[in-house]
Amino acid sequence: MTQAANRQILLASRPQGEPSAANFKLVQTPLPELREGQVRVRNHYLSLDPYMRGRMNEGRSYAQPQPLDEVMIGGTVGEVVESRHASFTPGDKVVGMGGWQEYSTVDAAQPGLLRKVDTTHVPLPAYLGAVGMPGVTAWYGLVRIIDPQAGQTVVVSAASGAVGSAVGQLAKARGCRAIGVAGGTDKCRYVTEELGFDACIDYKQHGDAKSLAAALKAAAPEGFDGYFENVGGMVLNAVLPQMKDHGRIAVCGMISGYNGEPIPLENPQLILTARLKVQGFIVAEHMDAWPEALKELGTLVATGRLKYRESVAEGLENAPDAFLGLLKGRNFGKQLVKLI
Amino acid sequence: MTQAANRQILLASRPQGEPSAANFKLVQTPLPELREGQVRVRNHYLSLDPYMRGRMNEGRSYAQPQPLDEVMIGGTVGEVVESRHASFTPGDKVVGMGGWQEYSTVDAAQPGLLRKVDTTHVPLPAYLGAVGMPGVTAWYGLVRIIDPQAGQTVVVSAASGAVGSAVGQLAKARGCRAIGVAGGTDKCRYVTEELGFDACIDYKQHGDAKSLAAALKAAAPEGFDGYFENVGGMVLNAVLPQMKDHGRIAVCGMISGYNGEPIPLENPQLILTARLKVQGFIVAEHMDAWPEALKELGTLVATGRLKYRESVAEGLENAPDAFLGLLKGRNFGKQLVKLI
Repeated sequence: MTQAANRQILLASRPQGEPSAANFKLVQTPLPELREGQVRVRNHYLSLDPYMRGRMNEGRSYAQPQPLDEVMIGGTVGEVVESRHASFTPGDKVVGMGGWQEYSTVDAAQPGLLRKVDTTHVPLPAYLGAVGMPGVTAWYGLVRIIDPQAGQTVVVSAASGAVGSAVGQLAKARGCRAIGVAGGTDKCRYVTEELGFDACIDYKQHGDAKSLAAALKAAAPEGFDGYFENVGGMVLNAVLPQMKDHGRIAVCGMISGYNGEPIPLENPQLILTARLKVQGFIVAEHMDAWPEALKELGTLVATGRLKYRESVAEGLENAPDAFLGLLKGRNFGKQLVKLI
Repeated sequence: MTQAANRQILLASRPQGEPSAANFKLVQTPLPELREGQVRVRNHYLSLDPYMRGRMNEGRSYAQPQPLDEVMIGGTVGEVVESRHASFTPGDKVVGMGGWQEYSTVDAAQPGLLRKVDTTHVPLPAYLGAVGMPGVTAWYGLVRIIDPQAGQTVVVSAASGAVGSAVGQLAKARGCRAIGVAGGTDKCRYVTEELGFDACIDYKQHGDAKSLAAALKAAAPEGFDGYFENVGGMVLNAVLPQMKDHGRIAVCGMISGYNGEPIPLENPQLILTARLKVQGFIVAEHMDAWPEALKELGTLVATGRLKYRESVAEGLENAPDAFLGLLKGRNFGKQLVKLI
């Protein structure tokens, strides 16, 4: 079977400070013959996520650095086009870690690499967002770390993003007040008017943590029982003094510090005086939580009770620009690249 | 029954920055008649603890500020000298929150205010230290928050202190490596030679977090699974980068920040990259843990397997100086004031 050659984006070099398009390289490679047990997937959508920035560095991050001159890692959804494994048939819709490329060749015998999904009630790209890794991330941090009770108040940064928007809606579904922090009036309006958060603070209106803290206090004078941290830096410094006793902070992202300039936490003793729990996590280490999370997320999406928004770039060649935009907060909702 | 008048130390003023003897006032007051249900205790020992510094401030700390012109709060052990409550008899040895005074008058009907203790195998002042609040603090942070497994490595700051010394010995009893951080060669020698820690780093030999971090790395190249934080500041900044993935930090004290100069946490994103849990606690909020903790601590002390050291100041009038010394780390082991 003859197929078009594969197009791939490799990590060409590691960024010094802020990454640029020059760190990536688009290449064209022939597709190898499928071996026994392998499956070929035509990737329809690639997911772009902040964690990829960490992988571009050599230093310590969540996991192994992305190797140079290899295909950038990334989650994908697509369709099986060729199969030499009994569990998969051409036409199957699948989600996996296909990477920044048009086709992926997957060793289907290895468990967990490829998962068939049902697109009857949930659109295929949602499996990269609300019913995928970002949704489960929101669910895990909220349900397993913050564990909010009805009547409590939860605040989330990057509230209009793929993770943040799910955090607030899942909190609302549990009878909590949900406060968002986002960048720009459009995003804030979306967060309150479309997603149903109780309030949203536009951090771009505030030059420092003190000013942002005052706005947060006006929105939630009762203080916060839970904070879902996607950003770090100024927002963390503004939220921390307003955490209630025994508050819980789920640390999911610290995008502001990725460029090699860590932003100090000004008042660590608040962790003691308010007896806070501050916990970092990555959802890939908690696979046991995925089935329960996906069940709730899938049901909420299928019934229209969990809303989400996508920013879709067209074509693999536009993935680097879309990724750089994501790091600067230019996306609005889950950032995807349409590959077909 | 005629008794000597009571001597008490009151909080006379709130410190601006570093506290001084002028913040305290020694007064002499007549002892009131006992009412029905009350018990009079002659306090034998007063416990001095870092948490008292937080109570001297007006602002947010663990709890209510210490009111001005009232007897300073504090744990005491002593002997019942007069009782109008059926559960207590003159001669009973008791532990309670008698405050900075020679006699305390306790409403014994209120549960938890006064507890009879057995001094057959455990000396009376130990109920203010290894078998009291500091010991239970060590136990709770280690067992309930750090939850170390045999073979793991635990580091504790203020390792020669009442809490720190118990943390390391409890960790050793669980098959862990125990590393201490303490101030001065004498304290470090005590920590390793008498308490049996595997190593102890003298932070006074190190001018910054980087230098201290290198010494910690030499002592424990494997990194730390748990950190019991009694100090904050430079030590925290030195330990944090050496926490292993999924490490746990129990935050019990941040003495460096009490004078109104918070010391920032330089690299909060390490909480994310190493997926740490950082949890502040005060043991008074976990009364459910006390029986189990006291049972283990009492057994270890009675059988000589939990060692401790006391710094004893003589006479109530010397309590302020002893307390100021404690804040500067001049004590060596549990700081007590002998009142009789």
